[in-house]
Amino acid sequence: MSAKGTFITFEGGEGCGKSTHIKLLASRLEELGYTVCQVREPGGTASGERIREILLDPSLSDMEPLTELLLYEAARAQIVTEVIAPALQDGQVVLCDRFIDSTVAYQGFGRGLDIALIEQLNAATIGDCVPDRTILLQLDAQAGLQRATEQTGAAHADRIEAAGADFHERVHDGFDTLAAQDPQRIRLIQTASSREKTQEAIRAQLADLFEGL
Amino acid sequence: MSAKGTFITFEGGEGCGKSTHIKLLASRLEELGYTVCQVREPGGTASGERIREILLDPSLSDMEPLTELLLYEAARAQIVTEVIAPALQDGQVVLCDRFIDSTVAYQGFGRGLDIALIEQLNAATIGDCVPDRTILLQLDAQAGLQRATEQTGAAHADRIEAAGADFHERVHDGFDTLAAQDPQRIRLIQTASSREKTQEAIRAQLADLFEGL
Repeated sequence: MSAKGTFITFEGGEGCGKSTHIKLLASRLEELGYTVCQVREPGGTASGERIREILLDPSLSDMEPLTELLLYEAARAQIVTEVIAPALQDGQVVLCDRFIDSTVAYQGFGRGLDIALIEQLNAATIGDCVPDRTILLQLDAQAGLQRATEQTGAAHADRIEAAGADFHERVHDGFDTLAAQDPQRIRLIQTASSREKTQEAIRAQLADLFEGL
Repeated sequence: MSAKGTFITFEGGEGCGKSTHIKLLASRLEELGYTVCQVREPGGTASGERIREILLDPSLSDMEPLTELLLYEAARAQIVTEVIAPALQDGQVVLCDRFIDSTVAYQGFGRGLDIALIEQLNAATIGDCVPDRTILLQLDAQAGLQRATEQTGAAHADRIEAAGADFHERVHDGFDTLAAQDPQRIRLIQTASSREKTQEAIRAQLADLFEGL
């Protein structure tokens, strides 16, 4: 359990609406008087943003899956120590766009790397910053990818978005598996309906953690 | 043991003369008819060179030791798969400037990270590309650092060179410890004497691997 603050992570495939719902939730929590720290992975620190550029660069298409995993974990080690742990110590609410579950879903289920190795690296990089709760937004994998590609333009699809439909199917199924394994922490929300209804469902899954939400 | 080729790594503290001696050895091996592949860590691939820039950037002075470790391992995963393993498969001699022992010495003994974790990551990134032999060039840690800083100019000392004398002492002692643990693979050569004598000592330690050396 993470110091005095509350640590909420958002997970899900491409285009599932994480960033929109993080913003909506952050506004509501700030109205309620909470201090909110919004972060995203990979990135959020000087080293982490440089690592992010490498990870998303479509010209590095021959990057090895293990290289990719280690870069995500490197960025995580930095943001946990530099940003997340201090914010939680300070009593803030940390809302993080992607965290440990994305690594298991993308690099484990998606790329086929050893999940035990990933879990060990996750444990090493997060220390005691275990999420108090995780919101998993799921929509049909194909629909999500389409939505993400429409937003950025297909010609500019980044290295992860460009990984192919089979890959994103495996990621989607991986998230489902993770949610089934740890239903207390990970709350699965299907995002088929309107944005308002999805945000309502998210708040319902966090109501016990924030007075008045 | 590594496929059909021969894999030699060079290790040692800052300014110990590794790159000079790798060049001299490569020339001699080529005279003898060997095909030589020279690589350096971190780097040697498109992703790896980008990772190298981050690792050596003096402006990223607040980089966490664990971030640093994971970046070195990420670059290693890429160069092993993309360059070293194919060259060995092809029967070449691979001469590598820094490899797994530098990570144990710098990030383990130097930065104080868990050596078991480092060894596990080393094993994951190198697969069966275990060095056939390792030349460890040692000179007094302070003298080596001075030599490296003179070469680049103190104002431009990179992030690793700038880590302080105590750090470089621990790295130096770490290399000694590694050589004592695995004297069959790691051959310690003191570089106090002339360049010619040092190169002679290196060749003597490799003579059983290369006919005519």
